[in-house]
Amino acid sequence: MQTSTTPIVYVPEDSDFTIYNLPYGVFETSSLDKRLGVAIGEYVLDLREAATQGFLSSLSSEYFQGTDFNAIMGLDRRAWKALRSDIQDVVYGKTSESIKSHHSLLSKLFIPMHQVSMHLPAKIGDYTDFYSSKEHATNVGTMFRGADNALNPNWVHLPVGYHGRSSSIIISGQDIRRPCGQLKGNQEPSPHYGPTQALDFELEMAFFVGQGNSLFESIPAKTARDYIFGLVLMNDWSARDIQRWEYVPLGPFGAKNFATSISPWIVPLEALEPFRVPAPTQEPQVLEYLERGPDPTTFDIHLTVSIQSSSMRKPQLICESNFRYLYWTMEQQLAHHTVTGCNLRPGDLLASGTISGKSEKSFGSMLELSWGGSKPLKLEETQEQRVYLQDGDQVMMHGYCQKENIRIGFGSCHGKILPAKPLT
Amino acid sequence: MQTSTTPIVYVPEDSDFTIYNLPYGVFETSSLDKRLGVAIGEYVLDLREAATQGFLSSLSSEYFQGTDFNAIMGLDRRAWKALRSDIQDVVYGKTSESIKSHHSLLSKLFIPMHQVSMHLPAKIGDYTDFYSSKEHATNVGTMFRGADNALNPNWVHLPVGYHGRSSSIIISGQDIRRPCGQLKGNQEPSPHYGPTQALDFELEMAFFVGQGNSLFESIPAKTARDYIFGLVLMNDWSARDIQRWEYVPLGPFGAKNFATSISPWIVPLEALEPFRVPAPTQEPQVLEYLERGPDPTTFDIHLTVSIQSSSMRKPQLICESNFRYLYWTMEQQLAHHTVTGCNLRPGDLLASGTISGKSEKSFGSMLELSWGGSKPLKLEETQEQRVYLQDGDQVMMHGYCQKENIRIGFGSCHGKILPAKPLT
Ligand SMILES: [Ca+2]
Ligand SMILES: [Ca+2]
Ligand SMILES: [Mg+2]
Ligand SMILES: [Mg+2]
Ligand code: NI
Repeated sequence: MQTSTTPIVYVPEDSDFTIYNLPYGVFETSSLDKRLGVAIGEYVLDLREAATQGFLSSLSSEYFQGTDFNAIMGLDRRAWKALRSDIQDVVYGKTSESIKSHHSLLSKLFIPMHQVSMHLPAKIGDYTDFYSSKEHATNVGTMFRGADNALNPNWVHLPVGYHGRSSSIIISGQDIRRPCGQLKGNQEPSPHYGPTQALDFELEMAFFVGQGNSLFESIPAKTARDYIFGLVLMNDWSARDIQRWEYVPLGPFGAKNFATSISPWIVPLEALEPFRVPAPTQEPQVLEYLERGPDPTTFDIHLTVSIQSSSMRKPQLICESNFRYLYWTMEQQLAHHTVTGCNLRPGDLLASGTISGKSEKSFGSMLELSWGGSKPLKLEETQEQRVYLQDGDQVMMHGYCQKENIRIGFGSCHGKILPAKPLT
Repeated sequence: MQTSTTPIVYVPEDSDFTIYNLPYGVFETSSLDKRLGVAIGEYVLDLREAATQGFLSSLSSEYFQGTDFNAIMGLDRRAWKALRSDIQDVVYGKTSESIKSHHSLLSKLFIPMHQVSMHLPAKIGDYTDFYSSKEHATNVGTMFRGADNALNPNWVHLPVGYHGRSSSIIISGQDIRRPCGQLKGNQEPSPHYGPTQALDFELEMAFFVGQGNSLFESIPAKTARDYIFGLVLMNDWSARDIQRWEYVPLGPFGAKNFATSISPWIVPLEALEPFRVPAPTQEPQVLEYLERGPDPTTFDIHLTVSIQSSSMRKPQLICESNFRYLYWTMEQQLAHHTVTGCNLRPGDLLASGTISGKSEKSFGSMLELSWGGSKPLKLEETQEQRVYLQDGDQVMMHGYCQKENIRIGFGSCHGKILPAKPLT
């Protein structure tokens, strides 16, 4: 059997979707109905077709007939590794002599990316948003409650989180309608109704749960890694004025449930392994169920946010952050989520919370970047100013890992702000 | 065609499931797989069989082949009325001469209730819990934050709510494992891990969403009624010590996501119509999207909670409350949920929050009944005392409406506390 060390489709050097990545997504084209795929270079490998050709023999072909990854997520790490290995063989042309020589087969398997439209990769049963960046929590706490009450006493003992809204999770590229709701200025005696004047993004990452746990069972942080399937970028759109008025005492609600965008390609945990780095030191020591083991790790994922107003010809970078800044790890989030016995299901989504670092340039929201409106951002190309997002603004998030010659990326999570519906 | 004014199966006078009720549930028996049914007296009408016999002609029989009501919920009120009318015809024996005379058909259609086990009636995409009892919010606020900060300024302007956990919604009768989590006494410098010492119930009702709305669309309160399919009883099990430590600033999380019980039979809104009563006056006036119209109404639903310790032979009534006490109506909850553009889907569940009234006897949680532990409840039969729930305790909730000769009931929402898992 011939083997090859280069993929059988062209992969640009700076691609997010190198052979080291192989992320999972759900796509359709004008001629192919919704199905599972893997991104490679500027192509999407059609997993249903690959299974039909007998190339994905580690799993029954039934797993590739559906329109979401939930069933595959429900398997275990061994099965995920075997599938990934099958896919690597296809991409390297190792599965069959005929792939390389038969153009018709090649073009059935690999669909040019510009022909596909993407869908949510899973049925998301429940979505949870954490609040795991110490810098972000401190920044927001300072602005909402003052510096003295910025970080609540519980914050260093547990990964604070809340249940989000799964129905309004949408795929990157879908436009965002500016929400209306209750607004109340500090000087106003009572709230009024209107479009938010403080529409914001939140730079986050989120992971899909693989295997779930039974109700009343819990998963300690030390074994939680096996329950993580893979990661995406997330923009947790937020209306700060609505949030400020509504969130005490039960947390954010309408301010965040109108839309949450995710990038379409799930980067499997396996692909991230080369980019493990030490996780932040935690002080005070955590309780046993949250313990991370002797050499706790997280991932070195470079994250950026760019913004482009309707007058601009190209986006401007406004934030550079990194997943590794997060104080609480994914394993700790998962452990805390299940500590009281809450059951997670394959396809559930757990988000990091806004990822801010120490420097002002690394703040992951307009709220922080403009420091509550006191330091407007300047858009260089047009000399416009921004405190919060304006109609027509596009927000683009990107993420990538790079180590020597190995590079993997998360693609893009972007969305454009549409004007609020006219008041009736 | 013969007609009848009495149902063709026996219905005891004091039944919850009179001919005026006809609630929807999902059941199975040792010989029948999971399917849709309607409770009548001490029987369950098998809707799949009724459809097969051609008795439910208002809807395609495909609607009755599944194992949840989501598709039927996704229809509109006209379709629900037509289905209800079909079912009334079956129960009155109007559909066919043969029903009454053919014992074999009768016994295929009507399954004795003691033979069935019940399942969740719908796939619940998202679950939201409101906080709509002014008395409850004031009581909890007083105990958690002191009398001066009991009711937050936003409370009278909007129905405060938060997103709950849909994966851990379970059907009445399933036992509850006492959860473990982080606990921190006021005098302790840092939290410890252990079983909750403050396990509580919350007496609530919840409604299933019928037709949903599109993302970025909102539904004003005045037209929201058409989106409500029907109601169930709910016990929102809560661990008060975990809640107190975790809930600032993003709301309840592990303290409430370990289990939420609902009664199995959805009472359709149609069945509740005879029990409409004026809704509470609201002052200050609400914003337009929350306006209820000139004669706002709610429902007169009597609610009770009983408790039975493992030493008791019969339950003791500890709470009598009423759905009509709620300050915010279901229509207002639905309007506020969608005001920022959040999409609701058929089968979503919106809960009322704990339903407390003015009198101490009407408080809907142990937290309130024992006033934060300062007034233990006495269990008369055994002379035991209760501040919170103990292992082996059963909590039973019931609800019914009565007006002259018309009575409908919600059945029961009950659960027993199992000891926490031994610490490892
Ligand atoms: Ca967030
Ligand atoms: Ca509740
Ligand atoms: Mg969101
Ligand atoms: Mg609950
Ligand atoms: Ni060969």
